[in-house]
Amino acid sequence: MRQTVEELTNGIIAGDRASLARGITLVESNSQKHFEEGQMLLQALMSHQNKTIRIGITGVPGAGKSTFIDSFGTYLTSKGLKVAVLAIDPSSQVSKGSILGDKTRMERLARDHKAFIRPSPAGGKLGGVSRKTRESIILCEAAGYDVILVETVGVGQGEYVVRNMVDFFLLIVLTGAGDELQVMKKGIMELPDLVVVNKADGDNKQRAVKAKQELNTILHFLTSYTEGWLTEAVLCSSTKESGIEEIWTKIEQFRERVEKNGLFKKRREEQQKEWLHDLIKEQVERLVFQHPIIKEHISQLESDIIKGKQSVSKSALSVIELFKQVYSS
Amino acid sequence: MRQTVEELTNGIIAGDRASLARGITLVESNSQKHFEEGQMLLQALMSHQNKTIRIGITGVPGAGKSTFIDSFGTYLTSKGLKVAVLAIDPSSQVSKGSILGDKTRMERLARDHKAFIRPSPAGGKLGGVSRKTRESIILCEAAGYDVILVETVGVGQGEYVVRNMVDFFLLIVLTGAGDELQVMKKGIMELPDLVVVNKADGDNKQRAVKAKQELNTILHFLTSYTEGWLTEAVLCSSTKESGIEEIWTKIEQFRERVEKNGLFKKRREEQQKEWLHDLIKEQVERLVFQHPIIKEHISQLESDIIKGKQSVSKSALSVIELFKQVYSS
Repeated sequence: MRQTVEELTNGIIAGDRASLARGITLVESNSQKHFEEGQMLLQALMSHQNKTIRIGITGVPGAGKSTFIDSFGTYLTSKGLKVAVLAIDPSSQVSKGSILGDKTRMERLARDHKAFIRPSPAGGKLGGVSRKTRESIILCEAAGYDVILVETVGVGQGEYVVRNMVDFFLLIVLTGAGDELQVMKKGIMELPDLVVVNKADGDNKQRAVKAKQELNTILHFLTSYTEGWLTEAVLCSSTKESGIEEIWTKIEQFRERVEKNGLFKKRREEQQKEWLHDLIKEQVERLVFQHPIIKEHISQLESDIIKGKQSVSKSALSVIELFKQVYSS
Repeated sequence: MRQTVEELTNGIIAGDRASLARGITLVESNSQKHFEEGQMLLQALMSHQNKTIRIGITGVPGAGKSTFIDSFGTYLTSKGLKVAVLAIDPSSQVSKGSILGDKTRMERLARDHKAFIRPSPAGGKLGGVSRKTRESIILCEAAGYDVILVETVGVGQGEYVVRNMVDFFLLIVLTGAGDELQVMKKGIMELPDLVVVNKADGDNKQRAVKAKQELNTILHFLTSYTEGWLTEAVLCSSTKESGIEEIWTKIEQFRERVEKNGLFKKRREEQQKEWLHDLIKEQVERLVFQHPIIKEHISQLESDIIKGKQSVSKSALSVIELFKQVYSS
């Protein structure tokens, strides 16, 4: 780290993109030293939070999330808003690569100086990603970004994690995937504040209209995730750029509604509590797994378990005993 | 719990389904008392592990996982094997319901006395699910099940978690989803030991053949997850029941291969280590979050954070300090 935490703080507040990128790298780091510096940075940026909206975007691979973000983000920057895109990339744990690393997925937005795109490899550790994405959001907000788009791939657990980090959650669906809707509806359909039927153009238009109607029927019978807000399905064509403005209008209406009824504030507060709990867990785990004596003991147990000398359950309990001993002396 | 741990142990070893179901409920429980009993149960069952194969099955919603498991499981029981299906259900955190609770998704298998189906709600906590699913596997194995099928929905993080619990990993793909393949390939395609192109029948047959060829081309350029094994794509029709036998033959070949080169054993050993680490984390978290003084402190911090008096980072550090104090006295 060539820059000090203070320099980074000033850079980020001044809206310097390189500082922001380095700040995110710092909070994403797994080393204890970087963790402490990262927490100092966050502490320093705490008083520089602006009024922002955090929007989660999800959908199965191929639903057109990137194309949508490209159009939607460009629309927002054209309105004078600064847009940050944080993409959680669960892919490629094996090769450590990142499909989202390829910024060409969002061609226009990547060249837009009012936009900042940051793919973050999940690396298979969901908890870590959750904490780090949350911290990256804070950094982007301190850097003056008004709209934070958090993209998550897939229909797995990532959805729930992201839902708990954002103000508004948007599900992008594809009309082509046949029975996909049938299977998805129960679990996933309970999460979003808006469902976007993407690729509503050309040959696909009619199917999209039908899908929208079906979705609205389903949504009608579900409890909305956000109290006092009716989740609806709308049409969108990212390539023809239709529907984009309507989606932003919905989000603005949503924001007004939840600010009025106090839910916006309440949700962010809940999210902070969750963040605190995650941070505590992370630190406590360090106390265990990075203590030299405990580390040694664990590695002995591992070899005993493999030899069949010891069960996993008993081993875990013996680690806990040792942990208590070590920290009581 | 009316049955004692000893009674449960005996019931499970005797292959009693009700005992097995209760045992799983016990290890899935979040209470400390049940945790301890669950660990005693696992300890008691430790010496009753048989030769089994653990197969992870994944695919996007609508890919036909349930229909596949229904056919595949029925094929296996017809060969005299006992089959357990553990389905991780990431859905419906909001309503606490479970789409997979509906056993009619696997109609034949649900009526088959050589099969045991158990859906487990993920409840939004991935780590917990991972530990609990692992323990449920042990229980099923002690109860005499030869093949353990672990189903996971989606293309998110769940895949990685399940991949790390099983011997063999199977990805089911659907040919209809158009560009789905394009987007998926990099991340997901690195995980499976076999890719099954499902619904290869009727109108879909030709597209399935084409998809299989494309997939094999892609797989050819990827590093297989399992060293010494070439991941291939095969066709399957769960409704017409074709391809099922070929898939089982592949799995048997795989097993022979990895048993010979030591990878089977090595992988299970690695998985036990990971399980140990997860258990330790869970227990340490209990030490923090269930200690009355620390609990009180955390709730005070939460209200300070909300009032803007305190940052999340500093709060977490103060909890760690208190934790050290509490356990050193």
